[in-house]
Amino acid sequence: MKKALFVFMAIFAIAAYADEGMWMPQQMPQIAAELQKAGIKIDPSRLTDLTGDPMGAVISLGGCTASFVSPDGLVVTNHHCAFGSIQFNSTPQRDLLKNGFLARTREEELPAGPGSRVFVTTKIEDVTPLVTGKLSPKLGDVERAKAIETNTKTLVSECEKPGGVRCRVASFFEGSQYLQMTQMEIRDVRLVYAPAEGIGNFGGETDNWMWPRHTGDWSFYRAYVGKDGKPADPSKDNVAFHPAHYLKVAQTGIKPGDFVMVAGYPGRTSRYRTEFEVQQAKDFSLPTTIRYYTDLSKILSDLGANNRQTQIRNAPRIRGFDNTLKNYTGTLSTLNKGTILQQRHQREADLAAFLASHPDAAKKYAGVLDKINKLDKESAATRERDAVLGMTVRSSPLLSQASRLYRYSVEKAKKDLDRAPGFQERDVPMLQQSSARAQSSIDLPSDRAGLRYMLIETTKLPAGQRIAPIDAALAKTGKSGTEAVDALLDQLYANTKLADLEARKAMLGETKAQLEARNDAMINLAAALYPLDKAIEDQERQVTGAMSRVRPLYMEALREMTGGKLYPDANSTLRITFGNVKGYSPKDGVWYEPQTTVFGVLQKDTGSGEFDSPKNLLAAISGKKFAPYGEPQIGGAVPIDFLSNVDTTGGNSGSPTLNANGELCGLLFDGTWESRGSDFLTDENTRSIHVDAQYMLWVMDAVDGAHNLLQEMGITPKF
Amino acid sequence: MKKALFVFMAIFAIAAYADEGMWMPQQMPQIAAELQKAGIKIDPSRLTDLTGDPMGAVISLGGCTASFVSPDGLVVTNHHCAFGSIQFNSTPQRDLLKNGFLARTREEELPAGPGSRVFVTTKIEDVTPLVTGKLSPKLGDVERAKAIETNTKTLVSECEKPGGVRCRVASFFEGSQYLQMTQMEIRDVRLVYAPAEGIGNFGGETDNWMWPRHTGDWSFYRAYVGKDGKPADPSKDNVAFHPAHYLKVAQTGIKPGDFVMVAGYPGRTSRYRTEFEVQQAKDFSLPTTIRYYTDLSKILSDLGANNRQTQIRNAPRIRGFDNTLKNYTGTLSTLNKGTILQQRHQREADLAAFLASHPDAAKKYAGVLDKINKLDKESAATRERDAVLGMTVRSSPLLSQASRLYRYSVEKAKKDLDRAPGFQERDVPMLQQSSARAQSSIDLPSDRAGLRYMLIETTKLPAGQRIAPIDAALAKTGKSGTEAVDALLDQLYANTKLADLEARKAMLGETKAQLEARNDAMINLAAALYPLDKAIEDQERQVTGAMSRVRPLYMEALREMTGGKLYPDANSTLRITFGNVKGYSPKDGVWYEPQTTVFGVLQKDTGSGEFDSPKNLLAAISGKKFAPYGEPQIGGAVPIDFLSNVDTTGGNSGSPTLNANGELCGLLFDGTWESRGSDFLTDENTRSIHVDAQYMLWVMDAVDGAHNLLQEMGITPKF
Repeated sequence: MKKALFVFMAIFAIAAYADEGMWMPQQMPQIAAELQKAGIKIDPSRLTDLTGDPMGAVISLGGCTASFVSPDGLVVTNHHCAFGSIQFNSTPQRDLLKNGFLARTREEELPAGPGSRVFVTTKIEDVTPLVTGKLSPKLGDVERAKAIETNTKTLVSECEKPGGVRCRVASFFEGSQYLQMTQMEIRDVRLVYAPAEGIGNFGGETDNWMWPRHTGDWSFYRAYVGKDGKPADPSKDNVAFHPAHYLKVAQTGIKPGDFVMVAGYPGRTSRYRTEFEVQQAKDFSLPTTIRYYTDLSKILSDLGANNRQTQIRNAPRIRGFDNTLKNYTGTLSTLNKGTILQQRHQREADLAAFLASHPDAAKKYAGVLDKINKLDKESAATRERDAVLGMTVRSSPLLSQASRLYRYSVEKAKKDLDRAPGFQERDVPMLQQSSARAQSSIDLPSDRAGLRYMLIETTKLPAGQRIAPIDAALAKTGKSGTEAVDALLDQLYANTKLADLEARKAMLGETKAQLEARNDAMINLAAALYPLDKAIEDQERQVTGAMSRVRPLYMEALREMTGGKLYPDANSTLRITFGNVKGYSPKDGVWYEPQTTVFGVLQKDTGSGEFDSPKNLLAAISGKKFAPYGEPQIGGAVPIDFLSNVDTTGGNSGSPTLNANGELCGLLFDGTWESRGSDFLTDENTRSIHVDAQYMLWVMDAVDGAHNLLQEMGITPKF
Repeated sequence: MKKALFVFMAIFAIAAYADEGMWMPQQMPQIAAELQKAGIKIDPSRLTDLTGDPMGAVISLGGCTASFVSPDGLVVTNHHCAFGSIQFNSTPQRDLLKNGFLARTREEELPAGPGSRVFVTTKIEDVTPLVTGKLSPKLGDVERAKAIETNTKTLVSECEKPGGVRCRVASFFEGSQYLQMTQMEIRDVRLVYAPAEGIGNFGGETDNWMWPRHTGDWSFYRAYVGKDGKPADPSKDNVAFHPAHYLKVAQTGIKPGDFVMVAGYPGRTSRYRTEFEVQQAKDFSLPTTIRYYTDLSKILSDLGANNRQTQIRNAPRIRGFDNTLKNYTGTLSTLNKGTILQQRHQREADLAAFLASHPDAAKKYAGVLDKINKLDKESAATRERDAVLGMTVRSSPLLSQASRLYRYSVEKAKKDLDRAPGFQERDVPMLQQSSARAQSSIDLPSDRAGLRYMLIETTKLPAGQRIAPIDAALAKTGKSGTEAVDALLDQLYANTKLADLEARKAMLGETKAQLEARNDAMINLAAALYPLDKAIEDQERQVTGAMSRVRPLYMEALREMTGGKLYPDANSTLRITFGNVKGYSPKDGVWYEPQTTVFGVLQKDTGSGEFDSPKNLLAAISGKKFAPYGEPQIGGAVPIDFLSNVDTTGGNSGSPTLNANGELCGLLFDGTWESRGSDFLTDENTRSIHVDAQYMLWVMDAVDGAHNLLQEMGITPKF
């Protein structure tokens, strides 16, 4: 469940059923009875205090979740969340990806990589009146969308004025509510410990999204701040951050039936989206993404077949493609054979029936669903072109960088508040850092091969949806078919400096005229594509504005019909989900136990590829010295991973899993294959996968000798 | 677990552990306490009475097991045991294989096919003194083997004198004991009912040897005898056989933990074979068979790709290849990764240690294992040639027939008692019938393609192990390489009448001179191969004679060392095994439930290929009318298959599974993938697979409308 790095036209949705829910911390008092019934022992109201224990220890890495586990800012998250940092520090000569890494002293810690951040949410405020409260009903759709954008940007700007914080205004319940999140933004993050790939990514893509699982998916960072205790740019002079709260690691393991809860930052779900929108996902966006990612992953993998340097460079992209690919493949399979669409259809039929028998509601919500459907249909008219265009830019890290540089030069000429989100002054450091970070993934043959594949795709677009600037560039080569594509690529890669980090640094901040004067082929292509990008953005703004009138009404209608407690769709803000440790039956005759053990590693290990455990791990398992980390219900063995019915999605990766006493008993890192589709609809078999803290502690103690970190977490090593 | 139709150099073995055992009926009093502990409710001593209830109802089909289930000779066995009969009666126009068959009246019953038999064991006597009691120690190895053969044949001849019975003297405990079995031989067998392939073979090769399983592996025959109640050749005038006992079908289902026992005819196990012999299986015989069967199965399958007629003709051979292939592949995998060889090594080390500390035993068993190993090594010297030669003959039904016809002409010239087993007067009807039966599997392009493959294999044999007659035949074509093979095949198939059933009928009984005078190319090849066959047979006889001195001693030494109750290796004689309904964990984190339900059919059904359920079955499942065949512990659903830890192997297929009261609660039909290797060694995860009688009854009642048969079994239809 790596966060979907390449989100792709994924606008879909679902209804609220029992045993599901990504609740907002402020909703905890509402669901206190359910939490207690499930077995929580601490006072549920404690969970509303974002600066208290335990919520004060839960942090965002921007895409993944993590938590503080020591008074000195030690952070634990998933291995796959730290993957970029590990890759950034790896070379064929010092292969941290393969061998893992442990800093035995603070001095040995490594930079997490440009742009690495730790975000600590400190405040959540309802700003709905300030965002949509004063909008004139007379505004056109575009004006309405712009007004919401402006109100939001103004709020964020005010919020961030004191410095050291990052603010965000997010829409909840389909635009019914706007909340402003204030987050402390720590900018000096260092890599402390990552187990070998044969532990942290044991099972690789074969086991990804699968149960039974035997992956030790953890890594450790440390947060640093200036001597004044405030966020600072990375510097040798910085000191370890002292969080107000950190999680205590549970010293007793969990067992089947136990209460667990997960606090984290789920990225996106689609539980309130319409039948038409789910149908679009099934018919178009999922199969299209699957096709592109399958091909692109293979292209990059083939290029690295005999070259470890290329493998390391492409590793994050391939892993991102493959992760999404498997997720979407599972989701599509569930959509094809499951009842999700039927149930969505039923919900809309139920709503129609409800309105037919409730005249007041019928008046209030008249035509709402029809309007949403009409807007969706209009947007779908150019879906092929939009998908190909987006993917073409993403297929090439160079073209992605060129597009951002060009866009920034366009936006820079405007007043800060008028600029597009992501290109304001507040975003400049991230633009610089993401450029620096991209450097470790730039590989010219791979870049070209990916772009070539997508350029060929552009030539197949139907007549009404051509991408004129690309057609023109191809025509200009004087050739046709793939010869034109190759000629264009020759020209693009022969006449660009985009692969050079220093050149990109210089370009960031140049005016549009300066940038154009460079006559860089990749920048020229980005410039040629800009008018179309802009036109699509304007069109989307019109839809957004129109939707912002009807979607809150639709949500309200559903709420009125069901009368139940609702949680909003995930939107990368802090949520709490709870449940119990529980196995499931994936098919007739089979029961998946809720816990796996270290002996499963011996069963799966092949000594190579995705199942290549470190020799010292295998020896330690065979040695069977497990106390005090073994568990009686599994014969004294050390548990590895466990299942629960908590409700999670991409973005939750790395989230602390807390036991009934609020102690860290594991890390959320994945969902099961049979749960693919849960972003649309959960069912009684929906399960999340967690790595057990006992496995982490045992490996740190008995295998990796990370005694310094155990002691820092207050645990006395036994080995 | 179809009986291994093509047994191939499979001489291997194992030690006795708890919870295993294929016990002889006469051993029941010895293990009464264990039976009672497991939950049997009837008196265990009843099981020693072969003519009483329930053992009197357990019968052999010669390769499979079956049982009487009505006073009118109705027989139930596995669908895969009746497969040959179904195939024999199938044409593309009347495709019983695909659609199933139900005789609603006696008149509609179909012939089971030439050579079909029902054997009812009526007596088991110890004849050891008559077989080996008077052998002079001075006899040479060959003479000793011949003397045992002659004693055996004499006993059989005496036993069969009254007529209507078939007798056999079999070796138990590695030749320590010889028992004579008397069996009533019913020769008129008819096909009564087979469900559609989508029930009887649901899951096909994909699910074969696998759990969870959803196969309705049953079929019904009826036994007929002459009006005088004695066995008779098939005739319209025959009447239904009235068995002394028939099994009562249990009206209440089984549940996890319940006692079950299986009475049947397991074919062969290798639990007392030596480490060297197991190593030979792992290194040579299993991988060699796997290679040949993989290729031959593909050759035959490809030829039938677009021709249903060819498919039907080749179906039994392909199914036989594939079944053995999967079994051996699983076994080899277990041998490669499991501890079987280590444990066998340990047993021999333990024996050496035992002898070292027991001087009397050491004296008695001096050098026994060394002698066995020496004989095995000598036999292994020509293993490649022997394997290729055997397989070449078997690859071509025509050449197989030719070899048998030629051999019979050679043997026929001798006195009956001097003839090779299988070619005595008593065997002539079976020779005729097997020729008639082979007719439905003769397909010239397939025959030639299989033989071509093996002839090419003969050309690859090493210098010391050439098959001279084939080398000569190839050389005679004046060509080389595959051209020579094709030229030889042209000549063979252009000049043979072996594909003609009438011609074969005429040939059976001709003298060697008459047969040779026909100058039939296939007969000529068989004749050319005969001297080598004979030489190999003589060599084997020498080994058999030598082994017959030492193997009983080896068995005795093991018995003395372990001091435990031992059961003999399976040898196609009547055995009883018992245990409990029990799931297992195939791997860490997974538990296989011991019962599957009809809902699993809906999950697996794809509407085509191996998972193509009849529409009326799917409708009946969706209709959920299961009473009274549903079971409370699985939510009222009808159970399909169940697991138990009874100890079975090929030959047990079709065996009645009896509950604690001795009632029929299922039919044994397979073992699990994780149990492959159990012919060498069982472990705590060894499981057998049974079809539940409740599923059979429900399908007969609610789906196939076999109400006539239900009533005959004393069950009132509910649908």
